[in-house]
Amino acid sequence: MKTMINEIQAKLGFAPIKWDDDSLVVLDQKSLPGEEKYKRLTTVAEVVESIGNLTVRGAPLIGIAAAYGLCLLNDLSDDAQFNDACRMLIDSRPTAVNLRWAVERMASHRAQNRKCDKLADLLHGEAARIHSEDADMCARIGQHGNSIVPSKCRILTHCNAGALATGGIGTALGVIYTAHFSGKQIEVWVSETRPILQGARLTAWELGRAGVPHTLITDSMAGHLMARGEVDMVITGADRIAANLDFANKIGTYSLAVLAKHHGVPFYAAAPSTTFDPSCPDGNSIFIERRNADEVRRMGDHVLAPHDSPVYNPAFDITPHELIAGIISESGLSKPWRCNER
Amino acid sequence: MKTMINEIQAKLGFAPIKWDDDSLVVLDQKSLPGEEKYKRLTTVAEVVESIGNLTVRGAPLIGIAAAYGLCLLNDLSDDAQFNDACRMLIDSRPTAVNLRWAVERMASHRAQNRKCDKLADLLHGEAARIHSEDADMCARIGQHGNSIVPSKCRILTHCNAGALATGGIGTALGVIYTAHFSGKQIEVWVSETRPILQGARLTAWELGRAGVPHTLITDSMAGHLMARGEVDMVITGADRIAANLDFANKIGTYSLAVLAKHHGVPFYAAAPSTTFDPSCPDGNSIFIERRNADEVRRMGDHVLAPHDSPVYNPAFDITPHELIAGIISESGLSKPWRCNER
Repeated sequence: MKTMINEIQAKLGFAPIKWDDDSLVVLDQKSLPGEEKYKRLTTVAEVVESIGNLTVRGAPLIGIAAAYGLCLLNDLSDDAQFNDACRMLIDSRPTAVNLRWAVERMASHRAQNRKCDKLADLLHGEAARIHSEDADMCARIGQHGNSIVPSKCRILTHCNAGALATGGIGTALGVIYTAHFSGKQIEVWVSETRPILQGARLTAWELGRAGVPHTLITDSMAGHLMARGEVDMVITGADRIAANLDFANKIGTYSLAVLAKHHGVPFYAAAPSTTFDPSCPDGNSIFIERRNADEVRRMGDHVLAPHDSPVYNPAFDITPHELIAGIISESGLSKPWRCNER
Repeated sequence: MKTMINEIQAKLGFAPIKWDDDSLVVLDQKSLPGEEKYKRLTTVAEVVESIGNLTVRGAPLIGIAAAYGLCLLNDLSDDAQFNDACRMLIDSRPTAVNLRWAVERMASHRAQNRKCDKLADLLHGEAARIHSEDADMCARIGQHGNSIVPSKCRILTHCNAGALATGGIGTALGVIYTAHFSGKQIEVWVSETRPILQGARLTAWELGRAGVPHTLITDSMAGHLMARGEVDMVITGADRIAANLDFANKIGTYSLAVLAKHHGVPFYAAAPSTTFDPSCPDGNSIFIERRNADEVRRMGDHVLAPHDSPVYNPAFDITPHELIAGIISESGLSKPWRCNER
């Protein structure tokens, strides 16, 4: 398993996040696929900004970024400064629960070691553990997921739940990489994922580097492909999973789940346990971030719509557990409880 | 009715196609919404190119353009020249049947008047009739459609089936304009319609000019809106309707129809009789045009995906009649035959 992970990561050849010389170096995901450039972040404010503007994105990765972000504080023993930083980081994006989870874990580690004169070292160690544990969870998600992927499978994925979104080989793409590198015949349908195009810009780029056969489509083509019998399975990531397994993920996931159900195509979400939020009883209690109208109306300088068109731009939607075959986490497959299983 | 049509057209204030001074002037739909500019076409080859590259688009409008296009021939009595032109026009886009219908109607009118020394005048008259009949059909589609729109209604539409796509006030948008201008409280969800963005670029622009309240969404948001109960009806256009009422329309229409069915939202297509193709028994016999990969990978100079990503880019999909409440044409509402009506 270790050998395969190394092989996958060697092929990918990038690290979306890295602690280096007392600062945080992140791959600027807004510049992909045109340019592979890295940004060095030296303050919490820069980390908050990078999460908010999607330079760093992906539920697990923004949790890791927030944990390292706290290590950038000048004085980790200053309660006011630390609490302000925690709040800013948690507020930088509201839907993915990993952010809050990582910040709370850092805060709890700090509270336990409040008096230690090596507090900075201890907190950096905790952030690094959050990072490496995420990599381990991805590897195990890949293994568990692979056990349900047939030897020949056309998998549709949405957004980017890959190495770019995590500390490891990815969640949904972790399953795909594991299946591909274990010799299965995998073909991936990549839905472009408007408005930010994480599918087209990031997933197609990652899969291309890893050498996994894939084809890009617009989000509107998924139903047509399913009707033609060209999709065997859908696997996406998740941003927050409620107690009943309803989950939030990138806008468009819900439509894919309805389409998959209609066509008898099994739908899975893949996510580490850090994405589960047992304090949310169901999808209705998950807050959905709404973003800027110009994400839909413009593409750089390119005008896609009248400049004053009213726009509705939720970044996520909720998929109810009734529509899914299961959620793949590092501990295995969670199947939703159904009151009348057919 | 005439007064309302005039009012709508005065508000819109554009003609997507116009015969002027022995040439064909078309609104360049590729430049919208950034710029409203017109192109003067003087040869059949220019008309063929303008249809193929989407300067002129919309099933009814490309039929009208093809009819006028034939009038640009130097010598209308030359059989070889005429037949070549017919073939080039029919082949310029394969899915919408209006193109073939209009060309065949012109050819038949020419055959009947082969010996007349006013052949050019007669053929121009026939093209103008095709144009004005289309405007009349739009008006009647608007009336019939309006009769099924409640006094307060949130309608989702896809692509552009408006004044820009027809010789009149549009088909799907004809219904919406008629409902709005007859005093109903209409709100329109405009799905942007990747890859060419006819929803964002054209429908939002038209509705804005006409003053119809609307909100732009990405194609991936429709399911989420339906789940929240924010869509009362879906109305789209159609490019070819088979004998059993299966129909081809812009890619993404089928997904919307599945989503509408899942949420109990009635789905209608609106199209003139010229879009019906009784020679197609069902949707399986409709040829689906596949277009260039760069329509998905690029947006002008803007890079949306790795330059070598494999892309699947069908321009249309097929919606089976089982998913729709009916088709609105100038003669009323056609309801699909169902073997086990609930």
